[in-house]
Amino acid sequence: MRLSGTILITDMEAHSVYLTLFGIGLALLVAVLLGQIFNRLKMPPLLGQILGGFLVGNLLFTGLLSNLEGAELHLPMFTDEAFEVFGTAGIIFLMFLIGLEIKESDLIRAGKHSFVTAIGGMGLPLGAGVLLATGFGWSLKQSLVLGLTMAPTSIGITAVTLVDLNRLRTREGLTMMGAAIFDDVMVIIGLAVILATGSIGFITVKIVGFFLLICVVGRYFLPRIAAAGYGMALKGGGAALMVVVCIFAAFLAESLQVAAVTGAFLAGMFLSSSTVKEEIHRDIESVARCLFIPLFFFLVGSRIDISALIQSGLALLLIIPVSMISKIGGSFLGAWLSGLRANQALPVGIGMSPRLEFPIVISLLAVIHGIFTGDQAHELLGLTIGIVVSSIILTPLLLKSFYARAGNITEIHEHRL
Amino acid sequence: MRLSGTILITDMEAHSVYLTLFGIGLALLVAVLLGQIFNRLKMPPLLGQILGGFLVGNLLFTGLLSNLEGAELHLPMFTDEAFEVFGTAGIIFLMFLIGLEIKESDLIRAGKHSFVTAIGGMGLPLGAGVLLATGFGWSLKQSLVLGLTMAPTSIGITAVTLVDLNRLRTREGLTMMGAAIFDDVMVIIGLAVILATGSIGFITVKIVGFFLLICVVGRYFLPRIAAAGYGMALKGGGAALMVVVCIFAAFLAESLQVAAVTGAFLAGMFLSSSTVKEEIHRDIESVARCLFIPLFFFLVGSRIDISALIQSGLALLLIIPVSMISKIGGSFLGAWLSGLRANQALPVGIGMSPRLEFPIVISLLAVIHGIFTGDQAHELLGLTIGIVVSSIILTPLLLKSFYARAGNITEIHEHRL
Repeated sequence: MRLSGTILITDMEAHSVYLTLFGIGLALLVAVLLGQIFNRLKMPPLLGQILGGFLVGNLLFTGLLSNLEGAELHLPMFTDEAFEVFGTAGIIFLMFLIGLEIKESDLIRAGKHSFVTAIGGMGLPLGAGVLLATGFGWSLKQSLVLGLTMAPTSIGITAVTLVDLNRLRTREGLTMMGAAIFDDVMVIIGLAVILATGSIGFITVKIVGFFLLICVVGRYFLPRIAAAGYGMALKGGGAALMVVVCIFAAFLAESLQVAAVTGAFLAGMFLSSSTVKEEIHRDIESVARCLFIPLFFFLVGSRIDISALIQSGLALLLIIPVSMISKIGGSFLGAWLSGLRANQALPVGIGMSPRLEFPIVISLLAVIHGIFTGDQAHELLGLTIGIVVSSIILTPLLLKSFYARAGNITEIHEHRL
Repeated sequence: MRLSGTILITDMEAHSVYLTLFGIGLALLVAVLLGQIFNRLKMPPLLGQILGGFLVGNLLFTGLLSNLEGAELHLPMFTDEAFEVFGTAGIIFLMFLIGLEIKESDLIRAGKHSFVTAIGGMGLPLGAGVLLATGFGWSLKQSLVLGLTMAPTSIGITAVTLVDLNRLRTREGLTMMGAAIFDDVMVIIGLAVILATGSIGFITVKIVGFFLLICVVGRYFLPRIAAAGYGMALKGGGAALMVVVCIFAAFLAESLQVAAVTGAFLAGMFLSSSTVKEEIHRDIESVARCLFIPLFFFLVGSRIDISALIQSGLALLLIIPVSMISKIGGSFLGAWLSGLRANQALPVGIGMSPRLEFPIVISLLAVIHGIFTGDQAHELLGLTIGIVVSSIILTPLLLKSFYARAGNITEIHEHRL
């Protein structure tokens, strides 16, 4: 069976499909090796995978090696859309797996805590960002943008770390998962207000529509679809159907202006009561762990542009502590005010601090809308990358260190629901 | 974690990564449903998956629905390179899994049978094609091209069918797997001679280099790499490393002018003696079965262009029986002359008959080289598609029917090695 025959058309050049596959293989190799090294060093493996992507991305693309002969040869492999598709599938599968671990009733019970946590975790960074930017001499609208870039939460990195630490299904873990959903919705509405990305009424209708749809379809149909899928005689048919469900839920969410990861997470959650939950978890995990998830973290690293980071200079030294402390502090306060104990609210605060693609998207939108131009636009982008990079590096380390201190004796009784 | 945030840039339009993922989900759904229907009908599931791709490909792209409003909307999802990358990964994983089932010593023992089978299975179709084309009034060079399009073997479809029938590790199964490798090399050399695609000396050096390299690396390093990989504490690390090995072996083969599937197959075979063989098989199978393999067969179907098939008209009625009978007959003769019994040589003949991408590549090359122009070029392409489609539909059906007739009593003793 010779898809390979296609190489002959371009004769000596390797066919682009194989070149892309080779790039994926190379990225996976780097991600696995650095993940394993970090694991041996008792550091979170995902940081190793991000570092791998960062090194390859910056060395081969924008940095040191770009002047060496042949360096451009490697470019298409990593900038290719296929590469992004693999990485995106990784985060979707990851959030689906996280969802599978969580029961609907757990999330509802954590609802009040989650809501107040999300309010605190958005409010304080937004305020701190506005104050800081005003100090820079920026306009009110520009200050609101900087505040907004500090407000979102990308829960995936926290979720992986909690799973590794076996702390996902604790009161604080569930509070974070719920808060991330509220947070997502609030940021979309904030964007509509500050950047006028769309009519707030229409956006609200779409968001409400999504949650209604996923709740009805999710609760009543997903467990039946799963049972039917795993009842098929076709080898791998059930698992394939679950991949489809996961992709469709993410796409539905994305189409209705909700984060794709929220769609995948909720689909997973509605399947956590399925009779074939164990099979689903085993199948999707084996697909995701050995290919898509490492590629996701590698992709995250490869998208960090070190030159933009360097350009923003000293302001970075301010933005990094402000963004971390305000986000952790705001979420901690929210969680604590909602009734969690301080030693539960602190990991919630830490866990809510990772920010990934959303801040970068907000900055780009602000530039597109002409709120920032010229040097200020470059500065904003550099600061945003600083917020992202510091949060994704510090969160897993802080979470791990918190739970290491909390010790192993009290954890089972105190942290478990 | 919001890769999803990127949707905001294009606002109302869905982001292309999610659209591509949605296309992949849709293709997978169609492939699974039709695979399951075919399974229930006691037909090979892969035919259902190919049919699914064919229907979606022809209805949405070139056929009935292309005039309907919105039909173009669906195009990017399936013509995207990412889609092809997933499908290509499918056939690579598939051949790697087939390799895992086969021991080096088995293949060497079948070597003589394989070689003679490959000679017969190439010689007779080449001759028959030349005769037929001469009858059409074509030039000698044109006739040689038609003969060459009938000569290659794409063993993947046979391999899947043999696994489903539990007949891979029989004398005839092993003969076919070996013959497919010889066949691959001979077709590349045939192409160099007839179409002058490259210096025969250089091609031979590369091919020999590939086999030397894969044998040394494969035998001495692969089992160690696998053991080390599965020894890592990193979750999924071993499986990820095996994905890397599989991709690299395919890429190496492709770069040295050998079929990518041959590289993946040999890498799998050198791992069949590994201490972690069972783990590798379980992991790669679960990745491949629920996603990549169904997408591969869907991709095959979606690439069949019904309009080209219709254009070639009556000549199809000649080419289909000639290509099937000469390929089956030639391989049967070769296998029988090499010493197999007739009831072993017949399934070898059938199993050697699938032809997939290679005939199409040969036709395209002949057109590019100006050997066919205008209407003749269209006719050649139509005939080639006829050869491909008939062979991939008939092979699994014929193999299944042969083994059903052979019965269940004698098979264990007579067909097993």
